[in-house]
Amino acid sequence: MTRTLQSYVHDAWWSPADITRGAEVRDATTGEPVAIVSSEGLDLAGTMEYARTVGQRHLGELTFHQRAVILKQLALALTERKAELYELSTRTGATKADSWVDIDGGIGVLFTYSGKGRRELPNARVQLDGPVEPLSKDGTFLGRHIRTTLPGVAVQINAFNFPVWGALEKLAPAFLAGMPTIVKPATPGAYVTEHLVRIMVESGLLPAGSLQLVTGSIREVFDHARLGDVVAFTGSASTADGLRRHDAVQAGGVIFSAETDSINASVLGPDAVAGTPEFDAYVRQLVTEMTSKAGQKCTAIRRAIVPLTLVDPLIAAVRDQIASKVVVGDPRADGTTMGALASIEQRDEVLRQVQALVDGGGRIALGDGQNPGEETAFLEPILLRFDDAWAPRVHDTEAFGPVASVIGYATPEEAAALVVRGGGSLVTSVASADPEFVAGLTRMSAAANGRMLVLDRTDARSSTGHGSPLPNLVHGGPGRAGGGEELGGVRSVFHYMQRTAIQGSPEMLTAITGVWHAGAATRDEAHPFRKSLQELRVGDRVVSEEREITLDDIAHFADFTGDTFYAHTDEAAAAANPFFPGRVAHGYLLLSFAAGLFVSPEPGPVLANYGLESLRFITPVSPGDRIRVALTAKQIIPRETDEYGEVHWDAVLTNQEGEIVATYDVLTLVSKTHEAVAA
Amino acid sequence: MTRTLQSYVHDAWWSPADITRGAEVRDATTGEPVAIVSSEGLDLAGTMEYARTVGQRHLGELTFHQRAVILKQLALALTERKAELYELSTRTGATKADSWVDIDGGIGVLFTYSGKGRRELPNARVQLDGPVEPLSKDGTFLGRHIRTTLPGVAVQINAFNFPVWGALEKLAPAFLAGMPTIVKPATPGAYVTEHLVRIMVESGLLPAGSLQLVTGSIREVFDHARLGDVVAFTGSASTADGLRRHDAVQAGGVIFSAETDSINASVLGPDAVAGTPEFDAYVRQLVTEMTSKAGQKCTAIRRAIVPLTLVDPLIAAVRDQIASKVVVGDPRADGTTMGALASIEQRDEVLRQVQALVDGGGRIALGDGQNPGEETAFLEPILLRFDDAWAPRVHDTEAFGPVASVIGYATPEEAAALVVRGGGSLVTSVASADPEFVAGLTRMSAAANGRMLVLDRTDARSSTGHGSPLPNLVHGGPGRAGGGEELGGVRSVFHYMQRTAIQGSPEMLTAITGVWHAGAATRDEAHPFRKSLQELRVGDRVVSEEREITLDDIAHFADFTGDTFYAHTDEAAAAANPFFPGRVAHGYLLLSFAAGLFVSPEPGPVLANYGLESLRFITPVSPGDRIRVALTAKQIIPRETDEYGEVHWDAVLTNQEGEIVATYDVLTLVSKTHEAVAA
Repeated sequence: MTRTLQSYVHDAWWSPADITRGAEVRDATTGEPVAIVSSEGLDLAGTMEYARTVGQRHLGELTFHQRAVILKQLALALTERKAELYELSTRTGATKADSWVDIDGGIGVLFTYSGKGRRELPNARVQLDGPVEPLSKDGTFLGRHIRTTLPGVAVQINAFNFPVWGALEKLAPAFLAGMPTIVKPATPGAYVTEHLVRIMVESGLLPAGSLQLVTGSIREVFDHARLGDVVAFTGSASTADGLRRHDAVQAGGVIFSAETDSINASVLGPDAVAGTPEFDAYVRQLVTEMTSKAGQKCTAIRRAIVPLTLVDPLIAAVRDQIASKVVVGDPRADGTTMGALASIEQRDEVLRQVQALVDGGGRIALGDGQNPGEETAFLEPILLRFDDAWAPRVHDTEAFGPVASVIGYATPEEAAALVVRGGGSLVTSVASADPEFVAGLTRMSAAANGRMLVLDRTDARSSTGHGSPLPNLVHGGPGRAGGGEELGGVRSVFHYMQRTAIQGSPEMLTAITGVWHAGAATRDEAHPFRKSLQELRVGDRVVSEEREITLDDIAHFADFTGDTFYAHTDEAAAAANPFFPGRVAHGYLLLSFAAGLFVSPEPGPVLANYGLESLRFITPVSPGDRIRVALTAKQIIPRETDEYGEVHWDAVLTNQEGEIVATYDVLTLVSKTHEAVAA
Repeated sequence: MTRTLQSYVHDAWWSPADITRGAEVRDATTGEPVAIVSSEGLDLAGTMEYARTVGQRHLGELTFHQRAVILKQLALALTERKAELYELSTRTGATKADSWVDIDGGIGVLFTYSGKGRRELPNARVQLDGPVEPLSKDGTFLGRHIRTTLPGVAVQINAFNFPVWGALEKLAPAFLAGMPTIVKPATPGAYVTEHLVRIMVESGLLPAGSLQLVTGSIREVFDHARLGDVVAFTGSASTADGLRRHDAVQAGGVIFSAETDSINASVLGPDAVAGTPEFDAYVRQLVTEMTSKAGQKCTAIRRAIVPLTLVDPLIAAVRDQIASKVVVGDPRADGTTMGALASIEQRDEVLRQVQALVDGGGRIALGDGQNPGEETAFLEPILLRFDDAWAPRVHDTEAFGPVASVIGYATPEEAAALVVRGGGSLVTSVASADPEFVAGLTRMSAAANGRMLVLDRTDARSSTGHGSPLPNLVHGGPGRAGGGEELGGVRSVFHYMQRTAIQGSPEMLTAITGVWHAGAATRDEAHPFRKSLQELRVGDRVVSEEREITLDDIAHFADFTGDTFYAHTDEAAAAANPFFPGRVAHGYLLLSFAAGLFVSPEPGPVLANYGLESLRFITPVSPGDRIRVALTAKQIIPRETDEYGEVHWDAVLTNQEGEIVATYDVLTLVSKTHEAVAA
């Protein structure tokens, strides 16, 4: 029976009343009808407004860390039921390996963002970007950059090839940023995405309004979009072009982000001749990229750019590799390595583009490029060769299937120029063991790429591959690739936030950011190390007694530690150094004495000093100088899933003249309560 | 005599052959003709290509630091001849104070970028963004983000109000990024910009092709722009809208960045009643913003958003302030505080917009809003009041002159909503001494602003003011403000670079970035502290002997430093701590011993350890454990203007099991040669 897919809006499932204008989706391997897709009658404006109001409110109540914890819980809930997704995925033509990329890959994005969110963002709602900018000599006027959540809705318009990963890789950063999402899957695999959303909804983990699903057309999205909204699109460059031109984007301030299929390149280095590990790795990778997901990946290799002398050996090697390793067929069958394209329409479109490549000067070197005409969407891999490396079609025409073209280059400069000729790519890979060639190619072509992968004998086995976007690396590229930047850890979170420069007094910057700024109020009433994380407030401070640094101290420290550097042991040599007046105290001596000055020795909430940041020695300390340290709670970061959290302390060492000797941040773990944290 | 302004293209001055279609520019204060402006016959395509080839090549040979040094030298050259610019500036209607903002402000941008470039960018051509991303368990496959220079030309299209600052604030980041610039000034003040460029050219400091000037129309710029080019526009939102829609931007990958006049707001807090320092500061700032540069600033306050009860007191106070402090007249005359608008056309346009505001519900509270009809461009300040705070015109209509409107709000939420109603602003200021009000307003409206300034009694004197973009803070804003991000230190440099994720083996990442990555080759042949900066190579390493940490060491260190924290002194208490197996060594003891292990005591090229970064203690060290340290030259940063440079060393402490005890970066100053650096 053919199901009519539902949408999920206003935190409830919704079915179209009228499916007469719905699209029918068929099984890519059998041609059987699977589902009807329609959003006819759906109130899109209301759906978007629900996200902006209810979704924003509920996500806005959570901190980055709290959102990150939910992402992990969602990942676990999906892992538990992922077999259901694998089952559905097969009907899209995906092999088990293809589905793994889509499903486990998508879940992996949630895990990664959960971890990165907690490690790289504060447990707060405002993110600090960069250091304090002093704006007045007296310290009463400071600048700081912050990021805050965009106040609108994040609408994602996805491609058909990754119904799970595509939805999750856009959801994770938006969710972490605090923006509610509307998922709009492509029609062909919409039944997989619908089920994905169903699992997430049924997990009960989603804050109200944080995730909605529109299965079917979302054509009028820009009529309802406004400043503060983001529309993130994955698909063809031409569709992206049409969407981008809407008034809402051009004049209305709606952010449009695109990740489009691009004419990605893979370069073989001149050193990587047949028989080298780099040549073999290149061939394996090329065949993988042609056949994985039947070549329906925005990141797949379309242009194999190889030394002129290696064109023939390469084609022969690819032929052998395909003959021995690639089995096209039913993705359910054992041994199948390449399944079907997503639909018959898609297969026919690929063959049209192959014909365009042939018309543009390409010769078919592998595969026949003929339309098999059956009612299923299988297609054998096709490799073309262009005798003219600069033929325009090879650089601008994409056959979105198991298709690549080989072109030859004469010099490294030409190789780089050919890469750039693609007009902007998601990814270029290069196989070479020659660091000079690799560095040169990178220098000449990095600006035309969102990602570059270097394959050599060292990483040939550990490489994650040309075609695999990773959650911790930027995915997207300039020009033809759409100009967007998805993934890349917190980088993509920031695309859902606005950066704002804040100017004001230290007190006001502290109030706005939750982080103590030098010059804001401090409280010295009790030693802050005696306070639990719950009691501690930013600005709590301890100012130590003075301690004199004697020549004996320095000599003893040199002797004890073995650090007999001449600046600490030899008066004449030290005085000849441009930075020292004579023998001075070791920096590490000062740090150690400072710790002795601010420590509170008995067991208490402070569990450990786990590190230190941004240490700078400013004024040397000579024998007879007296130092003291002021330690102020600067940032308090409770952990969501532990009984303790991190506290960053602002440490300032001064001498008897009040000159700053050293500044640094001390990083400690502090228990949330006075009850001992169990070992 | 009326001069015909020249352009500067292909590193030579160029004059239009035919000036019959040129525009005549008149003195704003006297109406006398000053100059003819025309680019008729100029080969713009060739000019842009010259930048992409010659300019890119010469700037590309320089590192960030070398470019930064030139920026400082340019600033000094301009300072020497700035009187010439002040002289010309008067003819635009600018008072001395206005010219100071434009000329000294512009030169200040060069100084700031020179300093930031050297402090915050490496002395290299590639910038590293974020930390290493481990991509394989065995460490053979890593990820890293880099930024490289966009390969095209940066075309700046400037507004008439800041002929010097406007050119320099866009030049500085592009130049630092390595992109050649074409300056296109607005016609009214083009003679000032032409002279600015003349001084810079005559300084002899400019690399070939790095700076060109087109005085006159640049209408067809997008016909010649392509992927890798940037067009940075300042001016009206409507002009920006038209430019942005060009195919080159929409589909060609040309980056278009806009900074447009916006309907900026200034909010008075409920606590800031008449008589408070905040009320006074608010009034002073509002009058300054209305009259400085005759209100012709993209950042000027257009909407004064004040508590309903304070609308009348505010208008009265503004009236008093203007009556007692503002003198409109010849900018050459002593005592003048406000000069003319840029042209009569501009004055008439302002009055048309004032009428639009009146038609939209505004009532004139100050000034008469009548056209004085004379042949000079003077205009008295005009303050309007809107009884309906939500009247659309007050939020969308800009009179680009000495004009502001007052609206009242009832609640903090309404104040924030009114700010946001402007559709995106360059800047919003708030005067209040109430941190809660300020933090709330910021939270609710920061995403609609590029910059926010908080005025209170603490910073009322030190504040640089609502209307002043600063080179170290982002300038630009979302939506109506254009969506661009100029200035902000290195942030704006990065808008002229492409971020690319790089994946590869440690060796290849080292080759591409010039920075050593763990796992890449190391050389242990000589102690690296005996090498001068010129001799040192990344990967040079010292691996120390082992040293046992005894209980006596720990006890002695506790006694000597005073750091008697229980984890080091009390076995039972330490064992109860969740992170320690029992008594452990102090972190600072380990650092100190490590320094003793890697030190090379005699005088040599290493001059000082000036700091430390990213210290993390990973595995506790118990009595009887043995530690060793490996120190590897990671990054070498020669200084351009000193006889030494910085070296960052990768430090890894391990125990006898090979477990990592601590990791950190040691920062040292190292002499370029073995000859002693003079004190």
